[in-house]
Amino acid sequence: MFGRLAGWMEATGADAALVTHPVSIAYLTGFRAEPHERLMALAVRPDRAVLVVPWLEEEAACAAVRGAEVRAWRDGEDPWAAVEAALGRPRRLGVEKAHLTLASWERLREFLVGAEPVDVGAEIRRLRARKTPEEIARLERAAGLTDEVVGRVLRELEPGRTELEVAAALDLAVAAGGATTSFETLVQSGENTARPHQPPGGRRLRSGDLVLVDAGAAWEGYRADLTRTVVLGEPPDARQRELHRLVLEAHDAAVAAVRAGVTSGQVDEAARSVLRGAGLGERFIHRLGHGLGLEAHEAPSLDPGGGTVLEAGMVVTVEPGVYVPGWGGIRIEDDVVVEPNGCRMLTRTGRALRPAEL
Amino acid sequence: MFGRLAGWMEATGADAALVTHPVSIAYLTGFRAEPHERLMALAVRPDRAVLVVPWLEEEAACAAVRGAEVRAWRDGEDPWAAVEAALGRPRRLGVEKAHLTLASWERLREFLVGAEPVDVGAEIRRLRARKTPEEIARLERAAGLTDEVVGRVLRELEPGRTELEVAAALDLAVAAGGATTSFETLVQSGENTARPHQPPGGRRLRSGDLVLVDAGAAWEGYRADLTRTVVLGEPPDARQRELHRLVLEAHDAAVAAVRAGVTSGQVDEAARSVLRGAGLGERFIHRLGHGLGLEAHEAPSLDPGGGTVLEAGMVVTVEPGVYVPGWGGIRIEDDVVVEPNGCRMLTRTGRALRPAEL
Repeated sequence: MFGRLAGWMEATGADAALVTHPVSIAYLTGFRAEPHERLMALAVRPDRAVLVVPWLEEEAACAAVRGAEVRAWRDGEDPWAAVEAALGRPRRLGVEKAHLTLASWERLREFLVGAEPVDVGAEIRRLRARKTPEEIARLERAAGLTDEVVGRVLRELEPGRTELEVAAALDLAVAAGGATTSFETLVQSGENTARPHQPPGGRRLRSGDLVLVDAGAAWEGYRADLTRTVVLGEPPDARQRELHRLVLEAHDAAVAAVRAGVTSGQVDEAARSVLRGAGLGERFIHRLGHGLGLEAHEAPSLDPGGGTVLEAGMVVTVEPGVYVPGWGGIRIEDDVVVEPNGCRMLTRTGRALRPAEL
Repeated sequence: MFGRLAGWMEATGADAALVTHPVSIAYLTGFRAEPHERLMALAVRPDRAVLVVPWLEEEAACAAVRGAEVRAWRDGEDPWAAVEAALGRPRRLGVEKAHLTLASWERLREFLVGAEPVDVGAEIRRLRARKTPEEIARLERAAGLTDEVVGRVLRELEPGRTELEVAAALDLAVAAGGATTSFETLVQSGENTARPHQPPGGRRLRSGDLVLVDAGAAWEGYRADLTRTVVLGEPPDARQRELHRLVLEAHDAAVAAVRAGVTSGQVDEAARSVLRGAGLGERFIHRLGHGLGLEAHEAPSLDPGGGTVLEAGMVVTVEPGVYVPGWGGIRIEDDVVVEPNGCRMLTRTGRALRPAEL
């Protein structure tokens, strides 16, 4: 099971690793849980692995975990005692530096006097970024359900409903499909579409509004992520059509650029140069996209200037957008699998500005 | 604005603080955002405060932030450069040790050579734990809406629906009330009720099932949290009635124990001793409760043996439960405000085992 970390331990000279990010634990053991503020940690040594869980996760952990023993601690007890027993006395300890808190590290140091922390997080992210065929099959199922749900809800949009009601309708449809939501569903309307992360609120949809939906279903933990922007009721006006056309062109250019061997920055630039050429470089205020898997945002990140080389089996979003404060924003987001000579679309929803044409 | 941290800075000799937990930033500035993996940080010095945000949060931050300047960084840029400019060269720096990652601390150390980290997180949690009247008013509104939504959905429960569909119906009702959900809604049925954190799934409700709902609405960011366990369709059987009666008794005992001046452990013990006396001590596998506010779980924690002294204005859940693997579980959870001589219930939903009697 943890053979996946064996090469890393040998290469770095680490004699143990403590994995604390719940998603990393899910990836390595098959046990998906969100312990919130309670400590959950996977102690990996060359000869054994122990998953330390809060007591109230014990039954579920025992049913799901592959390849590790399960040790439970109770509220009121010190969970670090179980971690200490499981870790032994490593001299070099792998930890997830981008997840482990300073408080946890100071606590670990109390019993690991002199131990040196080395980052195992980057290795786990690297492993997770290249999906197995089984993982891609789950992502494909998630994307297919997302297509179905978002397409149906957008075609049935009506003026008068609030953003929150539309978001809840999307969530209900995802649940009815036997899935969970990938992240907090976004529904934005009118000028709210200018703020990429603004959660849905009480604003009622009006005819002629831009309506942006950013939603996804997760299948067995694997998350899809889809954004469409439409105009409600009336025919789109000239500015809506023009900006939508440019975002579509940027989207096409980025999708055409995705293949194994190019850098993340090259793919970002393919879209960004289209928008820059149209004088909208300053309106594309975020990266082009991000990896998808057990997390809605994971490696690789498609940043401007990014140097990550894409590999076959990576799954990423492609989501250029333009945002004009006070007017609104348009974003189009699809999920794609990187392949040796291009990419394969997981998303199949049309990209039209009129809901009836999706 | 940041006068709230001035006393702490003086007492600890810290000459600056870097606040990175989004909820702490919301508490101190009024700007509620979830920047996910992008860096957002509030740099506080005696004479000024600067909030560093991702570019795509800039517009929303400028509209919401009180008492701090806003500086935005773009994807592809190094956000730590803005942090460095805002912090200056502190010798003692307040950081939230339970939130700041080891990776972030190592990055900070590169430009704060020799600076000593001191924990400001405990102080912020302490400040947040005692609610102002305005905060309590929001929590009360959240609890009232939660009562309405959960009561209605439980009374309309029918065999044949899946857990996920019931969860989505709850979320839809929360949205229709103009609120957001406090956390991922839990709906469990049958033996699934034995696993306190198990998310809703495709299991269909059957007549005679235990059905457990754990849900909450959030009003302006302030979160309610309510759990009820009912028996669907048929009259409860003897074992269901007996365990429910004992949890109710434990719940009554804990509520009666809450007042300013007692410890968290005393309140936990009030409930735990009831269940222990009935031979169910080993079936109550979690703490009694937790604080509520901008987070669904915050200080104070009502742990077995906990020594936190409750203060007037704290808001906590009281949620004893018993869990029998393979059979099911029963939990009853209310939200209460600690007062000088007792507590005030924010939750008003009845605690009956039959939905019609709630």
